[in-house]
Amino acid sequence: MTELRQDPTTNEWVIIARERAKRPYDFAKDREVRTTPDHVEDCPFCPGNERLTPPEVAVYHQESDRAHWIIRIVPNMFPALTPHTTTKEKFVDSRFKAKGGFGFHEVIIETPRHNQTLPGMDASHAAMLMQAYRDRYEVLSREAHVKMILIFKNHGVTAGTSLDHPHSQIIASPVVSAHAKRKSEVAGRYCEKTSRCLYCDINRWEIESESRLVSENDQFVIFHPFASHYPFETWISPKKHQASFGNIDLTEISELGKVLQENIRKMNSLLAEPDYNCVFHTAPIEEENAKYLHWYVQIVPRIWTAAGFEMGSGIYINTAVPEDTAKFMREV
Amino acid sequence: MTELRQDPTTNEWVIIARERAKRPYDFAKDREVRTTPDHVEDCPFCPGNERLTPPEVAVYHQESDRAHWIIRIVPNMFPALTPHTTTKEKFVDSRFKAKGGFGFHEVIIETPRHNQTLPGMDASHAAMLMQAYRDRYEVLSREAHVKMILIFKNHGVTAGTSLDHPHSQIIASPVVSAHAKRKSEVAGRYCEKTSRCLYCDINRWEIESESRLVSENDQFVIFHPFASHYPFETWISPKKHQASFGNIDLTEISELGKVLQENIRKMNSLLAEPDYNCVFHTAPIEEENAKYLHWYVQIVPRIWTAAGFEMGSGIYINTAVPEDTAKFMREV
Repeated sequence: MTELRQDPTTNEWVIIARERAKRPYDFAKDREVRTTPDHVEDCPFCPGNERLTPPEVAVYHQESDRAHWIIRIVPNMFPALTPHTTTKEKFVDSRFKAKGGFGFHEVIIETPRHNQTLPGMDASHAAMLMQAYRDRYEVLSREAHVKMILIFKNHGVTAGTSLDHPHSQIIASPVVSAHAKRKSEVAGRYCEKTSRCLYCDINRWEIESESRLVSENDQFVIFHPFASHYPFETWISPKKHQASFGNIDLTEISELGKVLQENIRKMNSLLAEPDYNCVFHTAPIEEENAKYLHWYVQIVPRIWTAAGFEMGSGIYINTAVPEDTAKFMREV
Repeated sequence: MTELRQDPTTNEWVIIARERAKRPYDFAKDREVRTTPDHVEDCPFCPGNERLTPPEVAVYHQESDRAHWIIRIVPNMFPALTPHTTTKEKFVDSRFKAKGGFGFHEVIIETPRHNQTLPGMDASHAAMLMQAYRDRYEVLSREAHVKMILIFKNHGVTAGTSLDHPHSQIIASPVVSAHAKRKSEVAGRYCEKTSRCLYCDINRWEIESESRLVSENDQFVIFHPFASHYPFETWISPKKHQASFGNIDLTEISELGKVLQENIRKMNSLLAEPDYNCVFHTAPIEEENAKYLHWYVQIVPRIWTAAGFEMGSGIYINTAVPEDTAKFMREV
């Protein structure tokens, strides 16, 4: 028997269609085991090849070693949006609305080591990465015309990456997407009615219900959402009300690094090191202090394919039940 | 230079980010050339194996040969939605809204021949397939509690299919998706303001502008939409105003089959036989006769990967310019 579930943050429906009782390895695809070297001669992100990227906009070192970088941030070579263009709106064929592709698109090279994945880093390195995200958020959010910022990581070819060397991306956009506006509307209406933040309430409900909870600590709640769109979709949500990732504090930064590492480790062990996307959902710049919005990190292993039904209806068919997958994660 | 374009049907933005002037073969992936046999012993959709599927709900023959089926329609073995369940709404943990997975999920086996693709069929066979789609639309749209119908085809593994034998699917859902509601709102507002159908206007604009036009005939306009979300995304839109695919007439049915075949043939020749999705967008049942909605078919070759940015923002990055890709299609 399948079930329709409504996503409380978008009002969209999801079909939870467990085909049969699945164990985690039913989701694990046959993957080629590859051994990746520590350094690749022609990788533009490996040390020694810094000339192959545009000049860095920021760089992070260890206190004790200023000669070698640990994290390096550079403009994307093939940017989706660039500051060297207009923000002016225009009408194509006098009918269709368009704008110059103004914005920022940066690449965060997470480590000098070609084969060092996020869960393989020291905790202090992972915390430095979260700090780098927040620093770039702060710099870019102050730029004129920037309305929305997205930090994300595509790990592996099926997750959309073309370069092996561990990296994340940050895009600062001159428009708020219709998708983000809808989430603001839904959460705004909820707050008008209840005077509460929908996401704070969801955190509380997930802690109380326990069935979809992966873990919690003083700073974060980790759970598989009720209307998960994808198998093993995981949310990491701060317990403190905060609309914007830009407002994260130092304790949270170092804890977030650890929590991310831990959850990717669990996924790796259950799903045989899947490709994944990691997305930082955060309020649009103008709503950074809204009492109805709440930032969170979403991790999505790429063990699904969106097909015609999803493209046409907007309704996802999820072949896993979040209560089952959360239990698997708790048991790792 | 990249450009932001607003999709007039959803108000969502798309980033058109041509990385460099691309020729169609830059999009064609290295694909294994496979020769598929005409008949596969254990394929549940091949003739002789009818017992491997649930009993058929409809079957189509040639006039001259009633002994052999040409098209066979069966309930999906692993349905996303099924009629054998409740439509009742419930609240999980007293908070989250859910419903039983009521609905219909059928598979249209398009041909008895395991290796006969849509463009390889006779025109009369393709017309029969369109007729079968419409017949099922009519039957399912009359069922109690059905609110929305989606007909779609996933061709190839990366497009989400698990069975090689050519087939399409039809899902009848007890909810109108939030996505469909938004499209109704956007088109409804446009109609209030102008007294015209947005989609009829888009058809006219695309014919006038010519730059994104692939072709047109008496019944249909074929174009690459201004805010294409995906490279080579193709729309086939009826010239006559019609909110619902259920209202298609006999001339249009036979023409639609030909137009679909022709456009998949063009894509195959330009993109080396890509996997693709084909989606029939049609008005929710309650809006079947709306003057602001309009059905259309969308064909999307799977030569892209949605990654973290798309998942987080709802904004797609399209690495092809629809004006360029439409020109390639015109020149085939």
